[in-house]
Amino acid sequence: MARNTHVDADHNAPPVTRILGKYVATHPSRGWSDAVDHEAHRTFMNWLGCAVGAAGHASADAALAAVAELQPAAQATVLGRRTKVDMASAALVNGITSHTFDFDDTHLKTIIHPAGPVASAALALAEHTGASGRAVIDALVLGIDVACRVGNAMYPDHYDRGWHITGSTGMLGAAAACGRLLGLDEERMTMALGIAASQPVGLREQFGTMTKPFHPGGAARAGLMSALLARHGYTSSARALEAPRGFMQVISSKADWNEITDELGQRFEISFNTYKPFACGIVIHPSIDACVQLREQGVKPEDVEQIDLRVHPLVLELTGKKEPGDGLLAKFSVYHGCAAGLIFGRAGEEEFSDHIVTRDDVVALRRKVVATADAGVDEAAAFVKATLKNGRQVEVHVEHAIGSLQRPMTDQNLDAKFHALADPVLGAGQVAELIAACWKVGAAADVKTLVALAQPR
Amino acid sequence: MARNTHVDADHNAPPVTRILGKYVATHPSRGWSDAVDHEAHRTFMNWLGCAVGAAGHASADAALAAVAELQPAAQATVLGRRTKVDMASAALVNGITSHTFDFDDTHLKTIIHPAGPVASAALALAEHTGASGRAVIDALVLGIDVACRVGNAMYPDHYDRGWHITGSTGMLGAAAACGRLLGLDEERMTMALGIAASQPVGLREQFGTMTKPFHPGGAARAGLMSALLARHGYTSSARALEAPRGFMQVISSKADWNEITDELGQRFEISFNTYKPFACGIVIHPSIDACVQLREQGVKPEDVEQIDLRVHPLVLELTGKKEPGDGLLAKFSVYHGCAAGLIFGRAGEEEFSDHIVTRDDVVALRRKVVATADAGVDEAAAFVKATLKNGRQVEVHVEHAIGSLQRPMTDQNLDAKFHALADPVLGAGQVAELIAACWKVGAAADVKTLVALAQPR
Repeated sequence: MARNTHVDADHNAPPVTRILGKYVATHPSRGWSDAVDHEAHRTFMNWLGCAVGAAGHASADAALAAVAELQPAAQATVLGRRTKVDMASAALVNGITSHTFDFDDTHLKTIIHPAGPVASAALALAEHTGASGRAVIDALVLGIDVACRVGNAMYPDHYDRGWHITGSTGMLGAAAACGRLLGLDEERMTMALGIAASQPVGLREQFGTMTKPFHPGGAARAGLMSALLARHGYTSSARALEAPRGFMQVISSKADWNEITDELGQRFEISFNTYKPFACGIVIHPSIDACVQLREQGVKPEDVEQIDLRVHPLVLELTGKKEPGDGLLAKFSVYHGCAAGLIFGRAGEEEFSDHIVTRDDVVALRRKVVATADAGVDEAAAFVKATLKNGRQVEVHVEHAIGSLQRPMTDQNLDAKFHALADPVLGAGQVAELIAACWKVGAAADVKTLVALAQPR
Repeated sequence: MARNTHVDADHNAPPVTRILGKYVATHPSRGWSDAVDHEAHRTFMNWLGCAVGAAGHASADAALAAVAELQPAAQATVLGRRTKVDMASAALVNGITSHTFDFDDTHLKTIIHPAGPVASAALALAEHTGASGRAVIDALVLGIDVACRVGNAMYPDHYDRGWHITGSTGMLGAAAACGRLLGLDEERMTMALGIAASQPVGLREQFGTMTKPFHPGGAARAGLMSALLARHGYTSSARALEAPRGFMQVISSKADWNEITDELGQRFEISFNTYKPFACGIVIHPSIDACVQLREQGVKPEDVEQIDLRVHPLVLELTGKKEPGDGLLAKFSVYHGCAAGLIFGRAGEEEFSDHIVTRDDVVALRRKVVATADAGVDEAAAFVKATLKNGRQVEVHVEHAIGSLQRPMTDQNLDAKFHALADPVLGAGQVAELIAACWKVGAAADVKTLVALAQPR
């Protein structure tokens, strides 16, 4: 995170987004000369003639055939709602929601969150086509492999340059997954990847806005549509990824081809996927984990005199907010993270809600946390010492937090996380059924039962 | 075109697009260990829980509200066909068809083809909402201004890097045009531009495939959806264009902010739009123009002994194909261009069709063309000398071809071009009505009559 190859960035650019926004919103109608207005008519009619002239072209046939697959509208479920929309829109919205809490999965080598684009596209398509659960899992493994391998080849240059790598590789993963579900042959699959290559989605500048989760959603939709287009004969460059004016050389200054081809079909990048146990930035996780362990060792919040925390300086630089006023700010407070871990034994989305963050006992406990920066501590580690009112001291050293590759979330951890997320939406009973359906999806004849369980009754 | 800043391009990359295409298409189902398959289930269920958990978030509400505007399906006309689809799909398909023949408009300073993304999005939206013709023209002027100003700021670096600039600025123009049609205020317009900024579409590697015209189509759809999202409260960075990790600094090494802000609202980039008179690369245009002028001076193909052509070396480098075997190849043959100009007095899409390109008299005439490269001739110019069988010689010097800024297409030229494109689809009578409707669109109460005329009866 401290790495920055973007040294020549211009930080003093004028606010051109707002300038153009105001201009387009407020410039008066016909606020220009007759010559300009006439040019607009010339532009319009020249464009219309070109469109009408090519209306019967094979590319129009293919595009319309792909678009026609989106009709009628109610094809795929918006997860967690009583709504169905066309499958491309379902891919978009489910991609957005799955990334909204920043609580999804992470391929640590590239910090790609791979399921957002890939699973959102695959499940929406599979629901509509009636594909088997096995086909969905196959599509997920292969789609994630494509996105993460391309990510491996470009990371970190591509990310440093400013791309949100989840959305700028995710459309390839989604295209691969959907192409697989559609049974595309090698040639059409290559075309699907090529069409997707023209549609990377995502800038890091959007972090902190709704457009961040739009990135996996937009990538899911783009990949799904690319596969549909290829299925109907739409063409692209078969060298769209690797050519000098192709995707990777255009959007990255690093392109290590071996990362794509080595051990293909033998090493699967999904093996290196991880799942966040806590709904906040990864640097706080060791500290929260340590406080959860204090709690498990019998330390009670009301007995605590002081908590001494020793972490890498980066942790305090990024998350040193002492008095977070609301849930969003609390995600950048290692002090709040420690308090939540000790009081609740977890730090999910609920523990970062406004009403928890402002609760008296939570505020009181986090004021007892004394954090020290120590460059000798690894970024992935945390040392915590609780001093109790009776003088007793309890120490915990976390070398790798729960959720890391070294200490992966257990299946039971994942169940608990799922319940915490979904119970408020669907109720605990239905969620238990849904969890069971998820674990067995690879053996399911289709995904209809599963998605039905993901809708509120 | 000879300029190339991409000096360190890797021309020896392995064919990873095809390698991945084959892999995803052919790798056996469950062709991995149980551990990988279990990880896939973990990935799937973790993703699903995140999506369900955030299903009620404001970003999901906004995205669904935008998607819901696309229902029901039959909202907007596919120009030149008897088909209506949802407006986002209409924007996509009309954007594709309008660029399919490479015959649309060109903003010469940036080689952006601005109407493709902007008009395709604006007309589809206006047809559905019942917006006035005036509102459409206003949206067109302002949308093209946004796309071309951002293009001016980044050109040529951005294009040299490998982006197809029409699609990688067009989504901003389309968002501006649609935001204007929707009456977004300054704040929401800024958000619309910000959402669009995350979705540039287009790589130059795709030239020669259907994905080239997909770029303006995809940009049209992305811009339309961005405006709909912003209308429903979807947020983005208000510095999405100019920030260090924002659009322009991420995708271009040049960002001349003055090109965006200077004379904003006074100088309109649509004033510098041009329209191709001939359905082929711009470097052949002076030669075709010269041969059309020979014809107008009474030179008849059957009287010609030889045609001597003197042009800049680049013309022969790019379009020196002597014996083009079909219509597509003929677009890269200045010899065929000259023959078509002299025989037909024009070189539209029809004159680049296979049956014309292989016709005996056309083949015979183009063999009489003798082309000479002369570095002393400007790239925009052509010297042509016809030697007739009776010994007479006729010379024409074209300094700037018809269609250039110096010798713009007249309105009558545009009418004739439109007829040549649209008559085979709609019939000459209906096309005459449609042309009249185009010239008056700025005064029309809505665009329904016009789009009805653009459908075959």
